[in-house]
Amino acid sequence: MNTKEAYETFRAIYEKIYACQHALELLYTDGVTAAPAGSADGRGKTSGILSQLEYELHTSADMKEAVACLIQNQDELTDLQRREIIEYNRRNEFIASIPADEYVEYRMLINKAEAVWRRAKPADDFAAFAPYLEKIFAAARRFALYYRPNDDPYDTLLDMYERGLTQAQADVFFGSLREKIVPLLRRVMASPEFDDSFMYRNCPIEAQRRLSDYLLDTIGVDREYCSIAETEHPFTTRFNKRDVRVTTHYYENNFASSMYSVIHEGGHALYELGSGDEYEYTCLAGGISMGIHESQSRLFENMIGRSREYIELIFPKLRELFPEQLADVGPREVWLAVNKSRPSLIRTEADELTYPLHIMVRYELEREIIAGRLSVYDLPAAWAEKYREYLGIDVPDNTRGVLQDSHWSGGMIGYFPSYALGSAYAAQIMAAMRRELDVSGLIRAGRIKEMVAWLTRKIYRHGCMYDPAVLLESCCGEPFNPDYYTDYLEEKYNLIIAELGGR
Amino acid sequence: MNTKEAYETFRAIYEKIYACQHALELLYTDGVTAAPAGSADGRGKTSGILSQLEYELHTSADMKEAVACLIQNQDELTDLQRREIIEYNRRNEFIASIPADEYVEYRMLINKAEAVWRRAKPADDFAAFAPYLEKIFAAARRFALYYRPNDDPYDTLLDMYERGLTQAQADVFFGSLREKIVPLLRRVMASPEFDDSFMYRNCPIEAQRRLSDYLLDTIGVDREYCSIAETEHPFTTRFNKRDVRVTTHYYENNFASSMYSVIHEGGHALYELGSGDEYEYTCLAGGISMGIHESQSRLFENMIGRSREYIELIFPKLRELFPEQLADVGPREVWLAVNKSRPSLIRTEADELTYPLHIMVRYELEREIIAGRLSVYDLPAAWAEKYREYLGIDVPDNTRGVLQDSHWSGGMIGYFPSYALGSAYAAQIMAAMRRELDVSGLIRAGRIKEMVAWLTRKIYRHGCMYDPAVLLESCCGEPFNPDYYTDYLEEKYNLIIAELGGR
Repeated sequence: MNTKEAYETFRAIYEKIYACQHALELLYTDGVTAAPAGSADGRGKTSGILSQLEYELHTSADMKEAVACLIQNQDELTDLQRREIIEYNRRNEFIASIPADEYVEYRMLINKAEAVWRRAKPADDFAAFAPYLEKIFAAARRFALYYRPNDDPYDTLLDMYERGLTQAQADVFFGSLREKIVPLLRRVMASPEFDDSFMYRNCPIEAQRRLSDYLLDTIGVDREYCSIAETEHPFTTRFNKRDVRVTTHYYENNFASSMYSVIHEGGHALYELGSGDEYEYTCLAGGISMGIHESQSRLFENMIGRSREYIELIFPKLRELFPEQLADVGPREVWLAVNKSRPSLIRTEADELTYPLHIMVRYELEREIIAGRLSVYDLPAAWAEKYREYLGIDVPDNTRGVLQDSHWSGGMIGYFPSYALGSAYAAQIMAAMRRELDVSGLIRAGRIKEMVAWLTRKIYRHGCMYDPAVLLESCCGEPFNPDYYTDYLEEKYNLIIAELGGR
Repeated sequence: MNTKEAYETFRAIYEKIYACQHALELLYTDGVTAAPAGSADGRGKTSGILSQLEYELHTSADMKEAVACLIQNQDELTDLQRREIIEYNRRNEFIASIPADEYVEYRMLINKAEAVWRRAKPADDFAAFAPYLEKIFAAARRFALYYRPNDDPYDTLLDMYERGLTQAQADVFFGSLREKIVPLLRRVMASPEFDDSFMYRNCPIEAQRRLSDYLLDTIGVDREYCSIAETEHPFTTRFNKRDVRVTTHYYENNFASSMYSVIHEGGHALYELGSGDEYEYTCLAGGISMGIHESQSRLFENMIGRSREYIELIFPKLRELFPEQLADVGPREVWLAVNKSRPSLIRTEADELTYPLHIMVRYELEREIIAGRLSVYDLPAAWAEKYREYLGIDVPDNTRGVLQDSHWSGGMIGYFPSYALGSAYAAQIMAAMRRELDVSGLIRAGRIKEMVAWLTRKIYRHGCMYDPAVLLESCCGEPFNPDYYTDYLEEKYNLIIAELGGR
């Protein structure tokens, strides 16, 4: 097998892998959006068979020979091809380290667990979900050790979502955030409380659906290639750069919930939609890491979506859609409302300032379970304890506690820290953008697409060509520096405190 | 390979085929419901690869050897296994007769054609769609000849949807319908015209969605295993008996359109949901033929859904959902409205009496194209001519003409006649049911589930164990007799003519 043949073999097999992944991802998406509640078994069966097939393709003799040949003859490859094979090999090593039957069983477990979680959450039935969660954590730990037998399994899991991240680094990062956020939050809490009750007036879901379309338009999401669906827990997925899906969840008495879900997922979608054409149907398509991905969702959700300029931009549409509900308020009130900071139970509903504390809880619990220092069955109690400690509130049930997120039921252990990291990346990227563009003016003028163009040039179009740290440095002109994030929060909340008449 | 091994091999490969089919069907369903408009290419790519894989499984040496062994040793099989292998072989012979690359290309063509049709229909752009349609007809003809080189290709296509049906039989069947329907329609047209304008008042789509749920409840569809989605052209699909999907299309100014789509598709869904457990994940699961399938959708749509008893049953809910729109009418008026018969342009909106004429147009055109006597490019003109001839109306555009149905873009050539046949089966089945159950009383009492139980016992639970003619005869106690259908139409429309004060 010469290098050219090897590359052709690699591409041919990879396209089959892509087809399996597309089908598997679609089965998942279907399961949490359109599928009837009782249909998990058949979907699990099909997912199991397609996962087995994907596994066989990854581990086939032809694929192994091709990859070995390409790794050996890297000099003969283009830059793109070289990156492709290195990236493929890195991801494949993980899957290849898992015994075939365990991998298939795991995919079926995830499929089933998702269905069980979907019922357990509204029913406050942690006991029904716990056995599945225990198996998922056990599998995550086992797989991490298959992959890197000599490393701490939680370090391995962190690294899988955010390359290079370790518990030691995460501890330092969260420590620094805690040091700055806690006093700031204390000052906010000491300020007069803003009455945001008007945000919880009944808003018909049909009008909220129209708002979603409008919001995606304001941030320049091309709807030709991106649709929206409804699900319990909002997420974004992409089958390719011309087929991206965002989901949301509507609450009649809280239009801001879906509003910020949509902007958040819209940020993820923009990243995927902007990936370079030359990477399509290769493993270099789409976002490079969860941290960079979350930087985009957070940048759009918080730094744009919660800015005073953006609220002023969209207020006429809000008033049009909810004329009675917003009759007695203006943009200033909506801006203060969507930036109100108070300790709360639900991560996805948390304000920008308390959000990292929600992440810290999950980070610490995951770490303890993987380390074997905490049993899954003790999670509800440990969860409640941490919420009391960090947020000062009591957790009344598991629906609003440990069952609130979909991540664990989907097997995503080690994912949560990248949310907090993403916010920090976002602040640094935004600061770099402000050096080149009149960000406030563009938002005010409804020209956010020009910011998307900047982000596309600096980040999106590069797909997975560069590691997160390299990409961030090339975008911002300096290495990662979390001070931008704490500076941003201090500036923003000082403004809000002043507006509220606090100190 | 002994018989036991052969059967195990057959089952193992068949389950992989099932997984591919599930994924392919889901890709299609996704494409016409949730997917963004511009996403056809990636879906086509994945569909092509999975179709190729399915084809390889069907034609693998292991599968061929197993099937040959099982066909040879049929005596050692159970009745179910024997039927399974014969049915599989019958269907597989068709696919196996198509060269691999043509089959893959065809699946990609269908995927693309569907997307083109979806744009062409609202744009009245037949020219954009015609090249795809030409290729689809050419493929249908070519595949029919690969499969049965000595038969008339349109006979082969008819037989694929309704086993045993030939052009000669269809000509006789349609001839007899025309003979009875045309004078009956003339008498209806001579009666005073009923003013049904209240049916076209604006009804919010949210309320129509709630009506869909209610209607599916009235006919006993188990929503745990059946969900509803929205698409251009309503259809039903099943991935297995616990995962059935119906779709509908809402029009603000015509709630009856979706109402009868939902009841129609609900009939299809009941058939699939009632299939015997022992057939699951085998080729014996689900409906035996398109004709029997359509008999169930028509039975629920027309014979139950348009009965006076059913309208009386559901009227309180209609009034609740559309209080202003139906303020000045009662069940009698709704019953007369939903049974109003007038020549019209759209097949799916046609009344029960003119419906077979719409089918006749399509039947005759398909036949001519496959025979090479009509070019696809001349279809709009030929379509208009036949509508003038049979229905006496002018076709103003292709949106409401040749582009109205999704069947041809989906490759379903030879399917249409089974709709008309289905209505005739339905009338005969209903007559048999009336001999055992108090049908009118059950509908009036909202106990339609007892009729579903009867149908399940007689038809649904048997899956594909019996050929359509055998199944119908065992259900009705006599062979197929289309007189039940014409008798039913005459009785029903005589009642309506009398109610309208006609003769």
